[in-house]
Amino acid sequence: QGYISQAWDAASGWVLMGAIGVLCGVFAGFIDIGAEWLSDIKEGVCPRAFWLSRKHCCWAEELAEQRDTCELWKSWGEMAGYSIEDDARLAGASFAVRYFAYMGWAALLAGICALLVVRISPYAAGSGIPEVKTILSGFIIRGYFSLWTLAVKALGMVAAVAAGLSLGKEGPLVHVACCCGNALSYLFAKYRLNEAKRREVLSGASAAGVSVAFGAPVGGVLFSLEEVSYYFPHKTMWRSFFAAMVGAVVLSNLNPFLSGHLVKFYVEFDYPWHWFELIPFIIIGVFGGLYGAFFNRFNLNWCSFRNQSALRKYGITEVVCVALVTALLSFPNRFTRSSAADTIAALFSECAPGSVDPLCDDDRSIIMGDLLLACAFKALITIFTFGIKAPAGLFIPTMFVGATFGRVIGMVVEDIVASHESVSMIANACPNPDTCITPGLYAMVGAAATLGGVTRMTVSLVVIMFELTGGLTYILPLMLAVMISKWVGDAFNRDGIYDRHIRLKGFPFLDTKEEFSFATRAVDVMQPPVSADEPPVVLPCDGLTVAGLEDIIRNHTFTGFPIVNNRRDMLPRGYLIRSDALDALAEYKHDPDCDMSAPVQFFEDDAEETSFSRAVGDAMPSEQALDVTAAVHRDVFQVSHTMVMPTVIELFRRMGIRQAIVMREGRLVGILTKKDVIKHMHVMTARHANVQYH
Amino acid sequence: QGYISQAWDAASGWVLMGAIGVLCGVFAGFIDIGAEWLSDIKEGVCPRAFWLSRKHCCWAEELAEQRDTCELWKSWGEMAGYSIEDDARLAGASFAVRYFAYMGWAALLAGICALLVVRISPYAAGSGIPEVKTILSGFIIRGYFSLWTLAVKALGMVAAVAAGLSLGKEGPLVHVACCCGNALSYLFAKYRLNEAKRREVLSGASAAGVSVAFGAPVGGVLFSLEEVSYYFPHKTMWRSFFAAMVGAVVLSNLNPFLSGHLVKFYVEFDYPWHWFELIPFIIIGVFGGLYGAFFNRFNLNWCSFRNQSALRKYGITEVVCVALVTALLSFPNRFTRSSAADTIAALFSECAPGSVDPLCDDDRSIIMGDLLLACAFKALITIFTFGIKAPAGLFIPTMFVGATFGRVIGMVVEDIVASHESVSMIANACPNPDTCITPGLYAMVGAAATLGGVTRMTVSLVVIMFELTGGLTYILPLMLAVMISKWVGDAFNRDGIYDRHIRLKGFPFLDTKEEFSFATRAVDVMQPPVSADEPPVVLPCDGLTVAGLEDIIRNHTFTGFPIVNNRRDMLPRGYLIRSDALDALAEYKHDPDCDMSAPVQFFEDDAEETSFSRAVGDAMPSEQALDVTAAVHRDVFQVSHTMVMPTVIELFRRMGIRQAIVMREGRLVGILTKKDVIKHMHVMTARHANVQYH
Repeated sequence: QGYISQAWDAASGWVLMGAIGVLCGVFAGFIDIGAEWLSDIKEGVCPRAFWLSRKHCCWAEELAEQRDTCELWKSWGEMAGYSIEDDARLAGASFAVRYFAYMGWAALLAGICALLVVRISPYAAGSGIPEVKTILSGFIIRGYFSLWTLAVKALGMVAAVAAGLSLGKEGPLVHVACCCGNALSYLFAKYRLNEAKRREVLSGASAAGVSVAFGAPVGGVLFSLEEVSYYFPHKTMWRSFFAAMVGAVVLSNLNPFLSGHLVKFYVEFDYPWHWFELIPFIIIGVFGGLYGAFFNRFNLNWCSFRNQSALRKYGITEVVCVALVTALLSFPNRFTRSSAADTIAALFSECAPGSVDPLCDDDRSIIMGDLLLACAFKALITIFTFGIKAPAGLFIPTMFVGATFGRVIGMVVEDIVASHESVSMIANACPNPDTCITPGLYAMVGAAATLGGVTRMTVSLVVIMFELTGGLTYILPLMLAVMISKWVGDAFNRDGIYDRHIRLKGFPFLDTKEEFSFATRAVDVMQPPVSADEPPVVLPCDGLTVAGLEDIIRNHTFTGFPIVNNRRDMLPRGYLIRSDALDALAEYKHDPDCDMSAPVQFFEDDAEETSFSRAVGDAMPSEQALDVTAAVHRDVFQVSHTMVMPTVIELFRRMGIRQAIVMREGRLVGILTKKDVIKHMHVMTARHANVQYH
Repeated sequence: QGYISQAWDAASGWVLMGAIGVLCGVFAGFIDIGAEWLSDIKEGVCPRAFWLSRKHCCWAEELAEQRDTCELWKSWGEMAGYSIEDDARLAGASFAVRYFAYMGWAALLAGICALLVVRISPYAAGSGIPEVKTILSGFIIRGYFSLWTLAVKALGMVAAVAAGLSLGKEGPLVHVACCCGNALSYLFAKYRLNEAKRREVLSGASAAGVSVAFGAPVGGVLFSLEEVSYYFPHKTMWRSFFAAMVGAVVLSNLNPFLSGHLVKFYVEFDYPWHWFELIPFIIIGVFGGLYGAFFNRFNLNWCSFRNQSALRKYGITEVVCVALVTALLSFPNRFTRSSAADTIAALFSECAPGSVDPLCDDDRSIIMGDLLLACAFKALITIFTFGIKAPAGLFIPTMFVGATFGRVIGMVVEDIVASHESVSMIANACPNPDTCITPGLYAMVGAAATLGGVTRMTVSLVVIMFELTGGLTYILPLMLAVMISKWVGDAFNRDGIYDRHIRLKGFPFLDTKEEFSFATRAVDVMQPPVSADEPPVVLPCDGLTVAGLEDIIRNHTFTGFPIVNNRRDMLPRGYLIRSDALDALAEYKHDPDCDMSAPVQFFEDDAEETSFSRAVGDAMPSEQALDVTAAVHRDVFQVSHTMVMPTVIELFRRMGIRQAIVMREGRLVGILTKKDVIKHMHVMTARHANVQYH
């Protein structure tokens, strides 16, 4: 029996990760298929079976060639009685009908989405990645992974994507995956009871979320490692990889896009790149960095304006308005009318001879103009979209901006090569000028560059992009673009969009990426400051009464209090979290017989402790004593008052602790909390920046 | 000017990593080409230009078809005057000449290699990965990355591979890369002066080493993260990726194998795998785990026998003997005669119709027999080879064992499918039975499984294998095999071969993978133990004389001593490392005027310190005082005596510290060193294992 329970204990982690993978795959498949159907309904309907998307509807056509232009699918113009072959006046009316249907559906879907979010689960708004990061760093946001959040996020995401809002479903899939992981981890006692272990499960779930979002299991693990997770031991990495693989396999068996690939924009290029193309790739990288800096700045400004203005009260109206404006401006441009993922897929593809894709027309200048318009439109509207009360990922709109720009650059380079065929460098590199330049690769490099600029991710981004193409060949251009775009972006403003939203929301998040190199010491940062010349707020073991405890807690807002033997010696004994103390007090006072002058008992009266401790001996535990022994943390970290802050910061980062006590001469002289440390870092960094650049 | 130096400071890390990548690529190319040429010389020579390998020699043939059976290359039999068309008697003589030449060259090359290693740089022996791991965890092995080691390792590796010893060049490339990284980091003041930063450079160099060894940049980064590095922040990851990419690009431009790929055994499969094949893949995984457990156990036993017996004095003789035995047994079997990498490449490949590869003959039972013989021979000889005085990697022989076994299983499955074509499950899965089974894929799964069993690596191994094939399709079988093999291996013995060699060598390495869950406390582990009832050995600030310091250091062997204000209060002030104290003492006593009764000055007499400290005030610094202020570490970590050991262990692991002081009641009561912690972990784990399984 011991063996069986041991084996179950060892296996339960794997079972849990596998289950998370399966659930992620199923959710992703549901969202993909649902969003596909509802997106198409903006443009038309399958009269035979209205619940089918255009592609699924046309799948019924017998000949594969007819699937692109199938008759089974009717646009709203056709449904209103205007057939395609009608004369010009009726064509105008058909266009108007389709335009209004498009906008009407967009407003309706956006309204449903916003209603769900605002009325049922406000946590479902946004991408969720800033909150997941914060939670994985040890902060608790109650209800953020609840089943209601999961349901609203999944349904809202379908509605928001279908409404044509400038947002993606990739980032929110991380939140969905974490909700699944959290729900499933409650089935296992090992994970239900241990918060640290549950955080490891959430790290794995994030990897599975990205894996199903991009069909990139390795990229998902690296995303979780680089961007989301705070602490990522090897065991978690391997289990994350397992969950990511299972998710990808489940999703590929659901085959949501009927293409055999997990994402719409999977692509395989046929021709290699040439060294001279590194110049345009660098240009694209610079653009990505500039766009990232621009987007992060203005999106943050708009979001903090929203928080401070009356706009925050009209969440639903805002979503509907943004959807209407988006639909109004999207419909006329052929590249923004269909879903962004479809356009990105087209932008990544090569033009096969005889292709009917609008990107492969001969009117190259018109195409380039439309692409640049689409690029500018998406760049602007996304600033106002990311942050509204709807589940909203950034990946797709950001990739859209980069892919349109990259494709234009690719076409320009194509033209240059075509008109300079005889230049020896080009002639040497490209024996066949027709296959010399692949504009689709430029679009992909552009997508990587803008993503790099906005998120400032590095390795995981390159690996995700690399998994979207079929080979190692294109990894160098992708890496170059991401590197340049990160450098350019960092020159303007330092952090990625997720870290900036964390700061905007005021979460206590200790960034693990920045290096801190100031020679300040623990004594300069601790509370109370040395200059205040007052003793720290502590709970003495020697005869603190219940009334005394209540008094201390009421008079101070600290999140926790160190326990000392007595106020004279200040020898540290442990730490009591404010909320635990309040809970214990409330329960104690619930009893009508409670005695506010009874002592507080901090420690079990065990032999080991009493033999060492005079103080506990002084305060004899009585029947009436308020017993907080179970809530006392005894593993609180001590730092010397002379310890330099870079070391203290590493201690907070790597050990994931929320407070430490500062010791001098063997006495407790102060408390360092995570908030103090974060504040100190910001102050010092800002002061340093002033000295440097002004 | 400030801007320029700042920009250089920011760029220097990238320049360094790029330079490391370039140097790694060049070294790998040199080793690849050199080993290729010397390997071929065992069998024959290019009379036109003796310094060419067979492939480079035959490259001169005009027709590509003739390159496989080219006339320009002569075997030693032909050189001795026996041409291929001669009669049977002469064929026998030719065989004998070739056999002797083969063995002679093997002994000669092995002797050169061992001479180089034993006489010039003993550190060049072995794979180097255990030592690199230990060094990255903070331990110092002087001269391990010296230029002499680099030269001997690179030349010795060429000779050892060419001698036909059962070893590979992949693992040692990590050591070579680290030598390059160490040498280059001395060119940058920022890295020369900061040991922690240099360790980060070495992490990146390890990634570059694996990247050039397997043509797998992503796998290299993950290898460095999972197996080699102790502390791997995001910035290091991105730079490692850069170094790995640069290395791979440089090597691919050198094109050492004239194939356009970075490794001999790069392969692209044409057909997908089927679900029913998971059963043989699981069998292969189990084999991999069993082999790993077997190999690790007996190789460790043999290595510790070698260390204890007289054998260790005959390093050169041992290498030559092993080489002779290897050559004697390798030559008759066609699969072991050529270099292991070539055989692995053939095992991974599919049999094209009309292929001349011996693996594709019709005599399937003979092939399987030869493969199993080769597998058993390699499995046994590698036990005696890994650990001899030659640069020796484990990857290639381990992959060889797995690939031969996997290929046999693949051929068996192929036969089963061929004879059960009509069974509905097989008929459904394989419309075309000829392309149903890919034995090459089985060989690759087998290689992954044995590697997993021996090294117990996980994600990085799967990713390296995935980068060796061209696509995501085969990642699931590879993952399954690695998972099963790790589980099976862990059931027999816990650690990978590298960790076991670290323990065999007695390095103080604190494993980051194992979880420690015992409820012992710091007080149970510290020195001196509570039971001893003696005060800890400390250096008091109040009037310790030079003679007193010398006395303490001579009477105790500890690696460091805490500094306290005085022996009565035991208030901690700092920490002095033994070797620093000895250096300071030696220098002090070098002065003929030295006064052994003068005080030791531990701290600068600065205002901040004196205002807080009675003790320093007591011992007024005199002109004659021994000044050790520069050597005192003030950021020593304090732990409470009640802190549970799992937390203490995490503190040691994550902060990479070597010692902490134990506090009770505000007094220093003991010292915890990394060695104490490691010893305690081993004791507790062993005791726990006894309780569990007996």
